[in-house]
Amino acid sequence: MPPKSLGIVQTQFLTFAHPPKEMILDSGLKLADITLAYETYGTINKDKSNAIFVFHSLTTDAHAAGFHAGDKKPGWWDDMIGPGKAFDTDKYFVISSNCIGSCKGSTGPISTNPKTGKPYGLNFPMVTINDMVRAQKYLIDHLGIKKLLSVAGGSMGGLQALLWAVNYPEYVSSVIAIATNTRQTAQQIAFHEVGRQAIMADPDWLNGDYYGKTIPARGLALARMIGHITYMSDQSMDEKFGRKLIAKEKFGYDFEQDFEVENYLKYRGDTFVQRFDANSYLYLSKSLDYFDLAKDGDLLKAFKNVKSNFLVIAFTSDWLYPAYQSKDMVRALKANDIDVSYVEINSSYGHDAFLVEIDEQSHLVSHFLKRIYKETT
Amino acid sequence: MPPKSLGIVQTQFLTFAHPPKEMILDSGLKLADITLAYETYGTINKDKSNAIFVFHSLTTDAHAAGFHAGDKKPGWWDDMIGPGKAFDTDKYFVISSNCIGSCKGSTGPISTNPKTGKPYGLNFPMVTINDMVRAQKYLIDHLGIKKLLSVAGGSMGGLQALLWAVNYPEYVSSVIAIATNTRQTAQQIAFHEVGRQAIMADPDWLNGDYYGKTIPARGLALARMIGHITYMSDQSMDEKFGRKLIAKEKFGYDFEQDFEVENYLKYRGDTFVQRFDANSYLYLSKSLDYFDLAKDGDLLKAFKNVKSNFLVIAFTSDWLYPAYQSKDMVRALKANDIDVSYVEINSSYGHDAFLVEIDEQSHLVSHFLKRIYKETT
Repeated sequence: MPPKSLGIVQTQFLTFAHPPKEMILDSGLKLADITLAYETYGTINKDKSNAIFVFHSLTTDAHAAGFHAGDKKPGWWDDMIGPGKAFDTDKYFVISSNCIGSCKGSTGPISTNPKTGKPYGLNFPMVTINDMVRAQKYLIDHLGIKKLLSVAGGSMGGLQALLWAVNYPEYVSSVIAIATNTRQTAQQIAFHEVGRQAIMADPDWLNGDYYGKTIPARGLALARMIGHITYMSDQSMDEKFGRKLIAKEKFGYDFEQDFEVENYLKYRGDTFVQRFDANSYLYLSKSLDYFDLAKDGDLLKAFKNVKSNFLVIAFTSDWLYPAYQSKDMVRALKANDIDVSYVEINSSYGHDAFLVEIDEQSHLVSHFLKRIYKETT
Repeated sequence: MPPKSLGIVQTQFLTFAHPPKEMILDSGLKLADITLAYETYGTINKDKSNAIFVFHSLTTDAHAAGFHAGDKKPGWWDDMIGPGKAFDTDKYFVISSNCIGSCKGSTGPISTNPKTGKPYGLNFPMVTINDMVRAQKYLIDHLGIKKLLSVAGGSMGGLQALLWAVNYPEYVSSVIAIATNTRQTAQQIAFHEVGRQAIMADPDWLNGDYYGKTIPARGLALARMIGHITYMSDQSMDEKFGRKLIAKEKFGYDFEQDFEVENYLKYRGDTFVQRFDANSYLYLSKSLDYFDLAKDGDLLKAFKNVKSNFLVIAFTSDWLYPAYQSKDMVRALKANDIDVSYVEINSSYGHDAFLVEIDEQSHLVSHFLKRIYKETT
């Protein structure tokens, strides 16, 4: 086990057993029999004032840190969460939960539809980021936490953190919003839609009713390949692959793959289909599209009731969630007299930087949390 | 007919009837029975010193300007080519030809394989940008032109223009290279490969043997949708679509399209499949991937024998062929004491800018051509 590791961790499950047993979603439809998968790291203190809620990005899960028994790879934010790390589990109690709509333990299209006894598939109701956050609120209530020291996330996780501060201002002392934005742009929607079209064009998709049959692997792999290009940058792709050929001396002059970058993307696509559900990809990408904090076009108004301090981090080469979007957010926060620190980290890693650029982020996050903890206790 | 139009134009066809009746391609394979589709505008002068060769981008064709009988839309560069326009057909003789591998009249995978009497499909040999340029050389020889006043093109057309200057230095007085680069990058290859995978994943593709059957429309439309996103910019998509919904009041909360940008992409994809061949898309995108002017990694050496003057134009928001790539090209040209003018045009249109930003390009091109014409005659 590497140093500073949380060691073995376990996923827990909360099923909404008492009222509300069901949620009325933004779509107006009901979702019943809701389960949330979550993990916690560290120990909650007596007055429950040291809890931090972290939110995962599109295709990750509740397993943010430590190791699952038998696994060689730790959780997706293990570099940031653990004893002595940025989210220091010697001090803080860190909660991470899988969002509804996903396929990693929380209720989603792969779950059993209580009405039919079969997987929901496309009968799963559409969920929004707001629905996800409202489901998470039940978890926080269940844990008896009245105020979160911080809500934190990158990418889609950042959207959830922002909505927590907007929806539950009294519950949120601070927000750490990384590589994220306040509304999904036309370009983001466009990339999502192409990914969805790729999945739905796969003859194995069967209108979402493929469970127990062949999974729509080619379509889902394609969606992932597209996504992966948007997570990297021109520069990081050039540095990592350039025009390197795959273990051959010259071009194949056929439609087999010639370049390492092609091989890498194919590998990424092919491994993804083994760990993620195609329908969940459809649902979650759509939940992103629907995200717009400024519903009437006024972002200033959206932040009006927010009571949290903010740390906003963007990355220079992130073209999926460009820094100008974080700056727009910061301007709207400042116009509401909200305490906000903004840092644009110089990085060539593109959107992936939020998972890669650990040193500078650790420094920023740990100092920010120390200050907030001091101010709130 | 709008003013300054060339009026009705016609595509001509040159079939290589005399030796060489066939070409040995870069792959080592032979291509026989080659036909080139081309158009010419304006009149060639007595000493044939006023000829300009323009090259099209990935999915366009020989029809660069004027109207085909019955058409309402002119050729793809009609804004730039015509009487009094940047490529002034009152002064210059403009030639435009469809590249081999395409599906617009020049020999490509859709053409009849003389060995089988059926369309080539995947039996068409792989062609490179170099092969395209070598085929074009036969056209210029056929027209009896010993020196081109200029070779010009944007995007893939720019690659051809560059190779003309490198391959036939004595034939090229000047190069106009717009929104192009000297080697395709890992990111470009990645986008191409995803497009190819989308086509090849379509069950109607049938390993390229779909002629006379159902075309792989969904795969090709997907490839086009991906391409289209890369041709625009975050800003131009935001300005054109933002988060506008398609003629509805609220989200559909299903997997129908909600946003105008989705509708636009789908429309672009669906119309594209009616005008372009899926196999040609595979071949041409692969020819792009193979393009690297600096074969041994030395761009300076690549330009060593070049004798042309250069006008290099890039666009600020073009992220598919970013301006830094044009600057690299300019540096390598200058290091070879080549006369080069470089202009980076401020535009929000992304890669599409080379077809949209007409005023500033017209000004630059017409002055550049005037100077070259003066110096060479």
